[in-house]
Amino acid sequence: MTVLNRQARALLESDALAHLVTLNSDGSPQVSCVWVGLDGDDIVSGHLDQRQKLRNVRRDPRVVLSLEAPDINDFGLREYLVVHATARVEEGNAADLLQQLAHVYLGPNVIFPPPLEARPGGYILRITPRRIGGIGPWTGG
Amino acid sequence: MTVLNRQARALLESDALAHLVTLNSDGSPQVSCVWVGLDGDDIVSGHLDQRQKLRNVRRDPRVVLSLEAPDINDFGLREYLVVHATARVEEGNAADLLQQLAHVYLGPNVIFPPPLEARPGGYILRITPRRIGGIGPWTGG
Repeated sequence: MTVLNRQARALLESDALAHLVTLNSDGSPQVSCVWVGLDGDDIVSGHLDQRQKLRNVRRDPRVVLSLEAPDINDFGLREYLVVHATARVEEGNAADLLQQLAHVYLGPNVIFPPPLEARPGGYILRITPRRIGGIGPWTGG
Repeated sequence: MTVLNRQARALLESDALAHLVTLNSDGSPQVSCVWVGLDGDDIVSGHLDQRQKLRNVRRDPRVVLSLEAPDINDFGLREYLVVHATARVEEGNAADLLQQLAHVYLGPNVIFPPPLEARPGGYILRITPRRIGGIGPWTGG
């Protein structure tokens, strides 16, 4: 199922930060900003360590991403994309993905993770979009 | 209880969009980007209509806001503020607040809401910060 149109894909492949919402065990929301890219129709992010958001996803796969777009609509409002999704945690290859995303987010010559932070393994968060919202050319409205 | 330091307050009073997370009746997260300002130690946003996020807050007051900052940290990562909060819906005066925020977000001479959208009443979301997260000078770390 593809819910991302061309414009949504372009924003997800840009250097726009993704505000990633997961659900804590008490049902409250948890938010952190992450780098994201596309792998086919999935959105992916890389994580060197097991953090709260990964524990949350293992327990409840419902996540939401929101990203600000560079464009302003006719009312002067900034466009943004909301992706309602389900996510799962995959083991390994986080550093490779982070290095690839660092070229998008930081620049073509950046080494990331920094050597002292680099380690094998880690986790990939694989996020499958289910429904789109926000304001912009991705909502079909 | 004041959990916002000077730098957090400055970001909340800037033209940074707030990604507002509320909780749907099935426990899933809902996100929309809103304009925010400060009223004492509370964060406020204005809403002309009764939308999903307001219905959500009336049922479950737990919300999270996240805002990107203009600053980049020593690792090259963009700073951002996360505010864990409880919110309540107040009736009235939304247009006045939106006009005040429009001067911050759109410019000093902007009329907002647009005349065709303006109407009396509406709703103010009053958001009381409980805990701070993210990356930046607001986390004390």
